[in-house]
Amino acid sequence: MPDLVESKPLSGFQDLLPQDALAFEGAVERLKQVFRRYGYAPIDAPCIYRFETLTGGRAGIDKELFEWHKKEGRDKTEQGDHIALRFDLTVPLARYVAANAASLTFPFKRYDVGKVWRGERPAKGRYREFYQCDFDVVGTVAPSSDLEVALVMADAVTACGVDKFRVRLNDRQILNGLLASLGLLERSSDILRVVDKLDKIGPEAVTEELTRPAEGDKPGLGISPVAATSVLSFTRLSSELAGDALLAELARRFESNPVAKAGVERLRFVVKGAQDLRGADRFAVDLSIARGLGYYTGTVYETVLLDAPEFGSVCSGGRYDDLASYYTKQWLPGVGASVGLSRLLTALAKISSDSSKKAAPCPVLVAVAPEVDPIEGTRTADLLRKAGIGAEVYHAQAIKDQPSTAAKLGKQLKYGDARGHRLVVIVAPDELSRRAVVVKDMASQKQDEVPLSGLVDAAMRHVSS
Amino acid sequence: MPDLVESKPLSGFQDLLPQDALAFEGAVERLKQVFRRYGYAPIDAPCIYRFETLTGGRAGIDKELFEWHKKEGRDKTEQGDHIALRFDLTVPLARYVAANAASLTFPFKRYDVGKVWRGERPAKGRYREFYQCDFDVVGTVAPSSDLEVALVMADAVTACGVDKFRVRLNDRQILNGLLASLGLLERSSDILRVVDKLDKIGPEAVTEELTRPAEGDKPGLGISPVAATSVLSFTRLSSELAGDALLAELARRFESNPVAKAGVERLRFVVKGAQDLRGADRFAVDLSIARGLGYYTGTVYETVLLDAPEFGSVCSGGRYDDLASYYTKQWLPGVGASVGLSRLLTALAKISSDSSKKAAPCPVLVAVAPEVDPIEGTRTADLLRKAGIGAEVYHAQAIKDQPSTAAKLGKQLKYGDARGHRLVVIVAPDELSRRAVVVKDMASQKQDEVPLSGLVDAAMRHVSS
Repeated sequence: MPDLVESKPLSGFQDLLPQDALAFEGAVERLKQVFRRYGYAPIDAPCIYRFETLTGGRAGIDKELFEWHKKEGRDKTEQGDHIALRFDLTVPLARYVAANAASLTFPFKRYDVGKVWRGERPAKGRYREFYQCDFDVVGTVAPSSDLEVALVMADAVTACGVDKFRVRLNDRQILNGLLASLGLLERSSDILRVVDKLDKIGPEAVTEELTRPAEGDKPGLGISPVAATSVLSFTRLSSELAGDALLAELARRFESNPVAKAGVERLRFVVKGAQDLRGADRFAVDLSIARGLGYYTGTVYETVLLDAPEFGSVCSGGRYDDLASYYTKQWLPGVGASVGLSRLLTALAKISSDSSKKAAPCPVLVAVAPEVDPIEGTRTADLLRKAGIGAEVYHAQAIKDQPSTAAKLGKQLKYGDARGHRLVVIVAPDELSRRAVVVKDMASQKQDEVPLSGLVDAAMRHVSS
Repeated sequence: MPDLVESKPLSGFQDLLPQDALAFEGAVERLKQVFRRYGYAPIDAPCIYRFETLTGGRAGIDKELFEWHKKEGRDKTEQGDHIALRFDLTVPLARYVAANAASLTFPFKRYDVGKVWRGERPAKGRYREFYQCDFDVVGTVAPSSDLEVALVMADAVTACGVDKFRVRLNDRQILNGLLASLGLLERSSDILRVVDKLDKIGPEAVTEELTRPAEGDKPGLGISPVAATSVLSFTRLSSELAGDALLAELARRFESNPVAKAGVERLRFVVKGAQDLRGADRFAVDLSIARGLGYYTGTVYETVLLDAPEFGSVCSGGRYDDLASYYTKQWLPGVGASVGLSRLLTALAKISSDSSKKAAPCPVLVAVAPEVDPIEGTRTADLLRKAGIGAEVYHAQAIKDQPSTAAKLGKQLKYGDARGHRLVVIVAPDELSRRAVVVKDMASQKQDEVPLSGLVDAAMRHVSS
């Protein structure tokens, strides 16, 4: 017999156990329902592309890719395309919109949930293969689309079972207006990337990085201390003023700055609309939110869990100026966000007081006594399934050189307990001769004889309680 | 401005348009519901593995793989692991069960829907990246699990919207019993692979391939013409006899052959149980079904659409003797099947008389007259969403250098028509001043004024009709 082959996943890759995969899949299905309810449609696009298609001529991106030259031909000596796995869902969206523009309706609203790959060195909590869950409206600058994204974010987080959260909003046009007034507009992208670290590294470290000159590996922007102080004190404004007072102050400050003023107007529309429709405490202007990504140009969003703020933002996004300029000349401004599904579910598991992770994919297990014809087990489970109640039949575990295909009831009940079934229906000879079964509630461990004609009702009562 | 980057997918890869992705996703969600109803749980496992993990020392498999040496290190000169993308969901299942055996409950029931990759030369209808959809019960030889797979197959095909189909069943133990009686048992795998081509190439070509000796590239098994005739006449038995008469004849023939006899017994249990629970015309013994794959050892299944038999089997599977012997010493016999989702949906599109492919992800579009505050559109849509009716708001399409964020109603109605919304709710100033909106049915093109207080009821009536 040859040696066994290694079965563990590679470093940076992971297996989800069935109970975790079930919870993950449930969350994904609920999120997709939310997206569809707002008119977003799914797309399906490849995971593999030409290297050039993914990098679009941009420097720096290639360092994270899983990329290789596909060998072709019977003897695999032909050098084929230089290809790579997608590293996010945004570049593939841009490519998809450009490639299929003639068949799409604009504004184009899509969602996409799928795996992406990054060749980075694995670290705790950082994987080389992981899910992203994105939704975007492409081809519009209407503020109603910015508001919609805020509402979808709130509904998405709610659909995952979170009640206490806050969506923090800002608008890069406001920040850029401020930077313009300081003569720093052309350095906006660098400055906002540093400001984005406020939550993580604090105001002193941010000031330090803004003001010191870059030196070797150490980053620094070398802007004047006066300008850095102005930027930081501006980001603090939203912790000193709130609601209408804050919006009025912003309007006053940027009265004569048309770009920032338009940003204030949009922010007002989005925040007040979202508060009106989903609750005032769920949305707040936060002028310190910048988002690290350079391509955001308008509204930016972050979502924190009030009971687990240490997990950072579980759903983030923003408005961008032009999605697909690498691939098409069509002007495609848009707005969208990403649900950080893995982070959100990890945070939820921490918040949740319910530590039981057992959850069978269906509520009922049908156990069949060894003396009974196994068809009776299948028939009983089928009665429940036809009534819409998930029910599985116990199949005897195979044991080498023991050909029996029946199992003792004790073993079957143990399986039901391990799997987390809420109800076990026992098909045994005595009861069956009276056209009845035993119904056992696994939580209370109480059991009753129930006629087969009343089984659906009895199961329904237990399962819906 | 730099040249535009190519946005088309690579040869052998495809984009699904939103309406096709929506139909595909709907089918997948319905299939998952069926699987869960029978107690199958999802798993989630990597797409990338060590080359050796995927090939398990088997010859021949590597020719289809997307495989490469991952380059590591800052300068990417470090030769990392030899890795490959999964080419099916069966090998990853075997590996998963072996790697996680201590945390799983046996028998282990899982489903998995995901992409797989094969490096073959693309051809019409053959992709290098495509979905598989598998379900399996691992760790049991109980015939109730073979019956369950037949029922899940029928329910899965039904859930995809097919009414007229037939699951054809056979048992390799019966075929092996026959081959044993001809002294050909040790050539079973080769012979059954040829017999599996009966449907495709016909009995003459199969006889030819069974009897001629292999010569160069031309395959041939060189078995005696008498034996070949016996095999072929046996596979025809199920077109001459059916139901109980066929099962009785099989029992008679194999009375003194314990292996084949056990196969006949299991086949009887599965076919009669499935016919009893899902209808006699939906299941039939077909002794010519062999399935090409060498690892099947018991029940084998195929499913044909009675209105589109030319598509071949849309759901196939079988019982295997030991799933994971490459990875673990634990004995893991099981049974499972694969839904050929792409093929099934293509066949369905052909059968369906409904040629309209338009289907918005939600039934209602809310159109907002340019003069109205856009918040009124969002508010109206939200009223419907809160009542569980999917409703999207029209966002004005962005046109370069035209800053307006409102659109004419005619353009919005055109969007609703293109997208396939069933209902357009128009928010216009006159009606709004009376706290009313206009509701337009897109099929009949009829429209009525409806008070906002009655909108949910009115929409519900249209949408459910």
